[in-house]
Amino acid sequence: MGKLASIIEKIEPVDQELMAEAQKRLDFLTKPQGSLGRLEELAKKLVGITGEKDPKVDKKIVVVMAGDHGIVEEGVSAYPQEVTPQMVYNFIRGGAAINVLSRHVGADVVVVDMGVATDLEDDSGIVSKKIGYGTKNFAKGPAMTRDEAIQAIEAGIEVVESIEKLDILATGEMGIGNTTPSSAIIATFSGCDVKEVTGRGTGVDDEGLDRKVQAIEKGLAVNKPDPEDALDVLSKVGGFEIAGLAGCVLAAAARKVPVIIDGFISTAGALIATELAPVAKEYIIASHISQEIGHRLMLERMGLNPLLDLDFRLGEGTGAALAMSLVEAGVKILKEMATFADAGVSERTE
Amino acid sequence: MGKLASIIEKIEPVDQELMAEAQKRLDFLTKPQGSLGRLEELAKKLVGITGEKDPKVDKKIVVVMAGDHGIVEEGVSAYPQEVTPQMVYNFIRGGAAINVLSRHVGADVVVVDMGVATDLEDDSGIVSKKIGYGTKNFAKGPAMTRDEAIQAIEAGIEVVESIEKLDILATGEMGIGNTTPSSAIIATFSGCDVKEVTGRGTGVDDEGLDRKVQAIEKGLAVNKPDPEDALDVLSKVGGFEIAGLAGCVLAAAARKVPVIIDGFISTAGALIATELAPVAKEYIIASHISQEIGHRLMLERMGLNPLLDLDFRLGEGTGAALAMSLVEAGVKILKEMATFADAGVSERTE
Repeated sequence: MGKLASIIEKIEPVDQELMAEAQKRLDFLTKPQGSLGRLEELAKKLVGITGEKDPKVDKKIVVVMAGDHGIVEEGVSAYPQEVTPQMVYNFIRGGAAINVLSRHVGADVVVVDMGVATDLEDDSGIVSKKIGYGTKNFAKGPAMTRDEAIQAIEAGIEVVESIEKLDILATGEMGIGNTTPSSAIIATFSGCDVKEVTGRGTGVDDEGLDRKVQAIEKGLAVNKPDPEDALDVLSKVGGFEIAGLAGCVLAAAARKVPVIIDGFISTAGALIATELAPVAKEYIIASHISQEIGHRLMLERMGLNPLLDLDFRLGEGTGAALAMSLVEAGVKILKEMATFADAGVSERTE
Repeated sequence: MGKLASIIEKIEPVDQELMAEAQKRLDFLTKPQGSLGRLEELAKKLVGITGEKDPKVDKKIVVVMAGDHGIVEEGVSAYPQEVTPQMVYNFIRGGAAINVLSRHVGADVVVVDMGVATDLEDDSGIVSKKIGYGTKNFAKGPAMTRDEAIQAIEAGIEVVESIEKLDILATGEMGIGNTTPSSAIIATFSGCDVKEVTGRGTGVDDEGLDRKVQAIEKGLAVNKPDPEDALDVLSKVGGFEIAGLAGCVLAAAARKVPVIIDGFISTAGALIATELAPVAKEYIIASHISQEIGHRLMLERMGLNPLLDLDFRLGEGTGAALAMSLVEAGVKILKEMATFADAGVSERTE
């Protein structure tokens, strides 16, 4: 059995019994029952995911996966492709938004080259898992082979497996043009009109948006990805970093580690993962709702309700990093608050 | 001129010119313009409020104001009045939700007795500004005198003035029954039906909710608070801690310190403050939207858009504490991110 099949087999449902116990504990704390809403839900979820009554939230890692996209030939992005490696170096030097927000929440950033179109410097700290020099232009044929898709998912699995200490994982990405494959993926799974799930990415104008929609429509017509076969969808209209992100989700779920997904592209990766292994959904926390119009549909398909709505449309893992702090807060509520009995506080009279 | 009038006179509009400069700086950072949405808005707002190009966010204080309410005689709360002092001691010992979340975001908690119905222990660390042993039952007559209302606002001002180092303030509260005066306040200012702005507070059942609505309707009929006169509204149907919270907002604005408001009761206090001094609105950041149905109307009246929606209905400052971390994140984005030029990243081509 290959790495992908064996990791999928390892993923178990979360522990519902421990979650019910956690709910009881939450109800004894000095607050009206349920009055901390989604923070209580997060605490309970962490207990169920980790199988620990008092889950640890110390070691937080943001994995940022980078890749390039042949589809940029169609003029789908407002930025040139050279920005992908430039931003990768920015991540390594600590100057990007994801670095600032990861430091803010106490997380470390791991940067992975899944398929940037140029060679990156060795010994720069970038984890190299390069599957190719960018995908092929999927408006003309498949983005990658099925073997490459599997290889890329397995590379993502390896990245997470190689992180020694890990309590919470967040996924992020960088890749000029990568909202285009993400829209193609959700259009395929949902059967929706391409226009309904295609947004402006980094900010294309009206003409750019038209080109983007047309490129995706062409790609779907040329490749005919099969919505019942996630690997077919991924290989025909996906991306190397999207595949890697799918691998991260699967490996985190197999390891009983919560995985916080970011915006449109991270969620596209999670969608591939959960089409391959539906039970992996139970390990995912949706950090925020992006400005990209197809994002909500992806989250709904996985039954996930985003925590934040801060009008983000950056990616990199920025929303996921912020949400890490909320998850940590929820766990601290469970672990640190006094009970009614401890604090000598009277319970409700009604 | 009294303390209240003189503090109102001190409040100046925020610095729009510096805010425009901050926007320019944000636009040079290595991200598509505006792609960090509300985090960028917060960074800009902090610059405008503080008048500093690089605002400090080091010293964070959550002021929790406690008070009791004569209106509890009408059976408007699910909890007995003794819970107010019990929770005050819980705050002092560090076991309440607000303590956990304040520690999480690196904020200190200041607990103030504005009018708890019993005597609290001296040298316990509680700041004593007791105006009375709870308000009077406003279903039968005014909650307090106009003089007491002014005295209570001024006590809130003094609390903030006495905090030596202060970069960001959050307001929170505790007081069994205090959603009832808060509903009465927004009903008066908005002219809405009491039913439309009255929720379940800590969780009263249907009969409790009926009693609550009736008590407020009675209170408005008996007292006829004048919506054009915020001090009249506050004294007739308000509360001591609500007055104190209004004072906190005014003092923070006068001191050019951002003030993050919490849920329904904190916002009622802010509403009193901004009816007295409309320019104070510019210093307020709305942390979250509460489950209390009247909350949105209060925020809309002040033109404020809440940052978080986590289904909270606890108060104490819990939502405001979490939002402090977002404000800090926004400021760090402004201060710590690399520019396109610094990082050698190409700008958009379109």
